[in-house]
Amino acid sequence: MEEKISLELFTTNNVWMMVATFLVFIMHLGFGALESGLTRSKNTVNILFKNTMIINIGLLTYALWGFNLMYPGFAEDSAGWFGFAGFGLFPGEDGGTSAYNPGYTYWTDFLFQGMFAATAATIVSGAVAERIRLDSFLIFSIVYVGIIYPIAGSWKWGGGWLQQLEVPFYDFAGSTIVHSVGGWAALAGVIVLGPRVHKYIDGKIRPIPGHSIPLAFIGVIMLWLGWFGFNGGSVLSADPALVSKVLVTTSLAAAAGAIGSYFGTRIFVKTSDITMVLNGILAGLVGITAGADVTSVTDALIIGFVAGVIVVVSVILLDRAKLDDPVGAISVHLVCGVWGTLATGIFGEGTSVMSQLIGIVAVGVFCFITAYIIFLLLKITLGMRVSEKEEVEGLDMYEHGMHAYPDINAPAE
Amino acid sequence: MEEKISLELFTTNNVWMMVATFLVFIMHLGFGALESGLTRSKNTVNILFKNTMIINIGLLTYALWGFNLMYPGFAEDSAGWFGFAGFGLFPGEDGGTSAYNPGYTYWTDFLFQGMFAATAATIVSGAVAERIRLDSFLIFSIVYVGIIYPIAGSWKWGGGWLQQLEVPFYDFAGSTIVHSVGGWAALAGVIVLGPRVHKYIDGKIRPIPGHSIPLAFIGVIMLWLGWFGFNGGSVLSADPALVSKVLVTTSLAAAAGAIGSYFGTRIFVKTSDITMVLNGILAGLVGITAGADVTSVTDALIIGFVAGVIVVVSVILLDRAKLDDPVGAISVHLVCGVWGTLATGIFGEGTSVMSQLIGIVAVGVFCFITAYIIFLLLKITLGMRVSEKEEVEGLDMYEHGMHAYPDINAPAE
Amino acid sequence: MEEKISLELFTTNNVWMMVATFLVFIMHLGFGALESGLTRSKNTVNILFKNTMIINIGLLTYALWGFNLMYPGFAEDSAGWFGFAGFGLFPGEDGGTSAYNPGYTYWTDFLFQGMFAATAATIVSGAVAERIRLDSFLIFSIVYVGIIYPIAGSWKWGGGWLQQLEVPFYDFAGSTIVHSVGGWAALAGVIVLGPRVHKYIDGKIRPIPGHSIPLAFIGVIMLWLGWFGFNGGSVLSADPALVSKVLVTTSLAAAAGAIGSYFGTRIFVKTSDITMVLNGILAGLVGITAGADVTSVTDALIIGFVAGVIVVVSVILLDRAKLDDPVGAISVHLVCGVWGTLATGIFGEGTSVMSQLIGIVAVGVFCFITAYIIFLLLKITLGMRVSEKEEVEGLDMYEHGMHAYPDINAPAE
Repeated sequence: MEEKISLELFTTNNVWMMVATFLVFIMHLGFGALESGLTRSKNTVNILFKNTMIINIGLLTYALWGFNLMYPGFAEDSAGWFGFAGFGLFPGEDGGTSAYNPGYTYWTDFLFQGMFAATAATIVSGAVAERIRLDSFLIFSIVYVGIIYPIAGSWKWGGGWLQQLEVPFYDFAGSTIVHSVGGWAALAGVIVLGPRVHKYIDGKIRPIPGHSIPLAFIGVIMLWLGWFGFNGGSVLSADPALVSKVLVTTSLAAAAGAIGSYFGTRIFVKTSDITMVLNGILAGLVGITAGADVTSVTDALIIGFVAGVIVVVSVILLDRAKLDDPVGAISVHLVCGVWGTLATGIFGEGTSVMSQLIGIVAVGVFCFITAYIIFLLLKITLGMRVSEKEEVEGLDMYEHGMHAYPDINAPAE
Repeated sequence: MEEKISLELFTTNNVWMMVATFLVFIMHLGFGALESGLTRSKNTVNILFKNTMIINIGLLTYALWGFNLMYPGFAEDSAGWFGFAGFGLFPGEDGGTSAYNPGYTYWTDFLFQGMFAATAATIVSGAVAERIRLDSFLIFSIVYVGIIYPIAGSWKWGGGWLQQLEVPFYDFAGSTIVHSVGGWAALAGVIVLGPRVHKYIDGKIRPIPGHSIPLAFIGVIMLWLGWFGFNGGSVLSADPALVSKVLVTTSLAAAAGAIGSYFGTRIFVKTSDITMVLNGILAGLVGITAGADVTSVTDALIIGFVAGVIVVVSVILLDRAKLDDPVGAISVHLVCGVWGTLATGIFGEGTSVMSQLIGIVAVGVFCFITAYIIFLLLKITLGMRVSEKEEVEGLDMYEHGMHAYPDINAPAE
Repeated sequence: MEEKISLELFTTNNVWMMVATFLVFIMHLGFGALESGLTRSKNTVNILFKNTMIINIGLLTYALWGFNLMYPGFAEDSAGWFGFAGFGLFPGEDGGTSAYNPGYTYWTDFLFQGMFAATAATIVSGAVAERIRLDSFLIFSIVYVGIIYPIAGSWKWGGGWLQQLEVPFYDFAGSTIVHSVGGWAALAGVIVLGPRVHKYIDGKIRPIPGHSIPLAFIGVIMLWLGWFGFNGGSVLSADPALVSKVLVTTSLAAAAGAIGSYFGTRIFVKTSDITMVLNGILAGLVGITAGADVTSVTDALIIGFVAGVIVVVSVILLDRAKLDDPVGAISVHLVCGVWGTLATGIFGEGTSVMSQLIGIVAVGVFCFITAYIIFLLLKITLGMRVSEKEEVEGLDMYEHGMHAYPDINAPAE
């Protein structure tokens, strides 16, 4: 502990960080609901199975080695590219309450960061939905969440080379370190997998609507709720002014993102598509994540609104490029993650656009290439896609032997 | 800050108020789920679109001007009817941590109050569902949440004339200031719009059941959860005895409301209608909201139970009066809001029935008339209702070009 | 208050305990969603009606007498089998803030414990689903939650005889005191009721899949979220090291439970059945509940993993024994509750396997017999089951006169 704080303040900080941890946990419910809502009912069990497993894989790999890979305790003269502090958890003799940091206990820190870790793979889950093989996805998740995510994270949050730049790369809660890490892998997955059957016919784009708008709505509101912990907890203490200001910039960016998407959709698509407005909220949230603590209210409104417009345009352009992303994960998490990281360089105090670019590109190159290689190896070995027959009839029956809604999908005779 | 408190206590108060803010945010999820659950699947996208937009409209208008309209800082010799402290947010130089109040930061205050603001329009959303034009509703929301709600609120919470009565009008967390404000507009909207097509045929009432009881259940439990923040946060500090007592009176009123509705429904409707019991919970919650801090446990049980019976009777009578409120919003929020405010005058210490009546009537007259005028102007200009054809076939296709459940609503050939 | 703590620490403890209370409340949403998801859509209103009523019955009976039955203040020389401190709530003159305990107020204590109380009946609700008469179930709930649960709880948490053993029976948050109490009654109910119609035909087991996997998913994630309060709040203060460590053991046991069920299902059932993995999470949570504070990270992983395997085997064996438990409540709450309580004797510091066995058996005998008698009396008087015709056509129409999904269950002509 650099500075000794009172037991009272330590306890309050810790309560806040535990609450933030619960909120980030809720994001997994949000992702599961959103991704299953935006895909077809014949693949619902499959999506939810993947998302359920990711939470558990994420927590376990993070406990076994990931935490110590992301926070290796880089020496001052190290290159800051890779470090590892050993397997398992080391709370110390005092139960993790001191010699650590002034904000909270070792245990709280592990759990808060562990909840973040699984997010990266969850983002991928939506993009590769409705066609990826279950086993291949689970293996990918273990490798990506267990190894790639913590290494990329160590460069910044672990005190590595991006943190050591003259003007350090700035990424408050992870527009790049979390969202684009997930987004790059989503892009790699979509490229390696190819589009869903019957998605692009004779050069024409066929819309494939998701099966439940209420699930998508519940998912997005849960994600917004979770973001209060994602961003608010990233203050790493209960500092009243800073945390509450972060909550305000976060909320206003989300609201501005919705409005940006509302107008973007009216102009570019000529409808009031609720999935666009919901993605606009997420776009604003991803956009503000890199700089929620260093941007003003006005900046937050601009960043969110622009993100909301960007996500609409990006969804349209990716579809034209025949990159089939059923839930818009690449547009939300990668494109708006890049935008938010850049915007932090433009609007944020004490940041540098050049450092931001270095961080975006370095993380992007590392994550895209490694994800691409993992997917390619899986394609060669296990296979990446289910057969066309299985895809048309739905992954739920073939991979899981069950329906999500048996009364509807397979009514009794 | 009137009284200097320790940094430790300030931080804890602020954490509590942030938690309360999250809980009030969750109420928007609750309203969206409840209202879509209690209406038909052909209008689900429309309801959720409205509720999604309301959150964002509410937050943005509150940030731009609403907060300063509701808390204008009335001068001691002012009439206390209207004031405005300017556009935007003014946290002050110290990041909003002092010179403000002993409970929490400026930012937390804004966000907590901002989450309340949007509630008023959300209440209206359910009452006018399944027939109102989308654009007209959105414009109504901007005006009502942005202007009418803050002005009515300023009379009491902003320190205006209702607060300056000899025995001040008492409304702890908003039975009148929030719930009846929404309820009066719901009543005005229902009158101006008229009932849904085929709701009343040859003088007979035709029940139109909602499309998903699980959504309604999720909605009500989420609303109850949110009410812990709505009422618990209205203490405006983490005062242990007061906050926890408020949570107990709130919960027991909700439970008693459910039991009241259970018996009310058995007696008056002769069924075990789950929607009635769910509305009974909400009735108890709305009823206790005005006096959760000044009533005893026994009072809370009585207030809740009576509210639970009232809501059943009110739903039946409104239907007989051909006032078509698909989700029972008027009965829950207006009728039980009035009951709770009155009950606070009867049971609460240091309150006056006369002051309560003055507050109820003044807010009612102001809100009903202004809402009526806004709706009338919209009817004359844009039009208030969709066409009968659109209503019969569902608003989702006509207003949004999509289905909520494409696999069911429009199965692929 | 044994030791005087600062107002600051008291306030923070109280905030934490209120947050824990909200989380336990959320478990009721989780149970409702899970149980309705794992049963058929023709019985959805019925399940949700029961679960809605249980929350309210639980809170009211606990306020009226249950709290004082569970915490009777046993005299030192009492037998510690039964005590009662009177009807109603007694916060004391200072609003419940002192003379009580160092952690939180009287009100917070009541509400936290009250949220626990209703859980016992909720567990039963799933096991007896799709065939029990509504009135009989409600009467059972009143008696079981109002009388049996508090008496069994008083033996340990109320300072009774199990707490007075030489090495006290150890049950941190209620693997036995809550989960097996519910589980034994579930077993008694299933035996008295018999299986659902057409469940076992000519000695063959007919799978009856639930109607909505998304509901089941939402339910389990909500339950996990709630468990953070269930276990974390059982520390009864915001002690940073202890609470946060409990959250980590809880989460890792849940994750290990999922993995245990994943492999258990692959091996014994040869599928990737999502309901098994979801139940595996719950199994891990129930398993760790007795010893979350006295077991290491490694212990937690073992306890959770074993629980995850056990639940799969138990579900299979109960089905073979023709004990028809539609949602697997007996396997999750009773079998894993026993396992967790035993494991605490094996792994936990300062515990005794013998004391654990005494507690398991004593609570089991008391609860199973009383539940069996209550169910039997109901069978003789009101009747326990709906008629076969009602069961086949669904309880929703017969008991409630409504459908859960009218657009699907009974489309308009």
